[in-house]
Amino acid sequence: MQGKLIVFEGVEGSGKTTQMQRSRDWLLEKMKAESPTFSQVAITREPGGTELGKALRRLLLEGTLNHPIQDRTELLLYAADRSQHVEEVLKPMLAAGGIILCDRYTDSTIAYQGYGRGLSLSLIEKICQMATDGLESDLTLWLDVDVEIGLARAKARGAADRMEQAELAFHQRVQQGFRALAAAHPQRIVRVDGSGTEAEVQGKIQAILTQRFREWSLEN
Amino acid sequence: MQGKLIVFEGVEGSGKTTQMQRSRDWLLEKMKAESPTFSQVAITREPGGTELGKALRRLLLEGTLNHPIQDRTELLLYAADRSQHVEEVLKPMLAAGGIILCDRYTDSTIAYQGYGRGLSLSLIEKICQMATDGLESDLTLWLDVDVEIGLARAKARGAADRMEQAELAFHQRVQQGFRALAAAHPQRIVRVDGSGTEAEVQGKIQAILTQRFREWSLEN
Repeated sequence: MQGKLIVFEGVEGSGKTTQMQRSRDWLLEKMKAESPTFSQVAITREPGGTELGKALRRLLLEGTLNHPIQDRTELLLYAADRSQHVEEVLKPMLAAGGIILCDRYTDSTIAYQGYGRGLSLSLIEKICQMATDGLESDLTLWLDVDVEIGLARAKARGAADRMEQAELAFHQRVQQGFRALAAAHPQRIVRVDGSGTEAEVQGKIQAILTQRFREWSLEN
Repeated sequence: MQGKLIVFEGVEGSGKTTQMQRSRDWLLEKMKAESPTFSQVAITREPGGTELGKALRRLLLEGTLNHPIQDRTELLLYAADRSQHVEEVLKPMLAAGGIILCDRYTDSTIAYQGYGRGLSLSLIEKICQMATDGLESDLTLWLDVDVEIGLARAKARGAADRMEQAELAFHQRVQQGFRALAAAHPQRIVRVDGSGTEAEVQGKIQAILTQRFREWSLEN
């Protein structure tokens, strides 16, 4: 059976990392208990899901450069990271029947570089199409938290990266992007209210995943 | 007066670097002798003309990675390097009236990633358009040397980089790309027979530049 690409999206501090780890642990338990439809559960991320991607992630997020990265350059670097990730990691894992939990994918590019930076959405779509070779997520979980709460959480966990340092208005435009994307793709993107406790949010995610895995098993 | 972007193109070992340095020295002398129409003469290159670009150049050419770089990733990395170079270096220098001698630009991307790797030419054109924000060279000098002679020269000067290590057939397709581009853009791209001595080739380049500078001075 072909695997499934499940993407976690949201603004800084939306709890993606924690929720992905808990979801993986839950899926692994579930696979042990039931007959395993999928071969494995893997966690990966963009940028930085490949060896090349790790180098690009440092350039993009860790701000080691004296000169600011241009908006179009940023878009192209995220696309380069994605293209390598799709070919080296995602496609082989999906072909082997794995479930992939991926921290950010194309919707982040539309939200951050399109809504946030103001680059042309049609151009971003073309670049994403090329970078992914047409590979879309099977399900995207958008963890919707208040931007200011998310940024405060991100700040509390340590030094802010280049994206986290951007102004509040930028992150609010990003949030608006996720909202527009969720409205435009109601089947692929599911909004998860991220305002509760970790356990509450995880409960909502497990309910969505249970439902979706049932649908997927019927398709096959 | 707006500056001019003069690009040197050609396969590995075509003598670009040497000819660019000689051309710069000659232009500087010429500017001292005549009334200076242009503010400065600068040499730059792609990839690697910016701080970010140097990091990308290492990733692209020095092969420090264990996993091969995917063709589409390679295209996007060259485009990211170019986008940063255009905004950070080329546009400001041209606005300040400088003459820029640039080692490789968009025609290399079409020749290497299009003709060489076989990626879609229309896609490459869109990516180049985006990366350059529409900035074309004012003049491209294509140093046309036999591919096998060029590769032997490149090999003789030291350790081969990732591009130089590619198979002969790849470099022959690249050469075919330069030929097609020169035929399609006879005003912008001028072929220079690169088979003579350094001084002979430099003489041909100076004749072309002298003619072109005369035309440019009449335009203003």
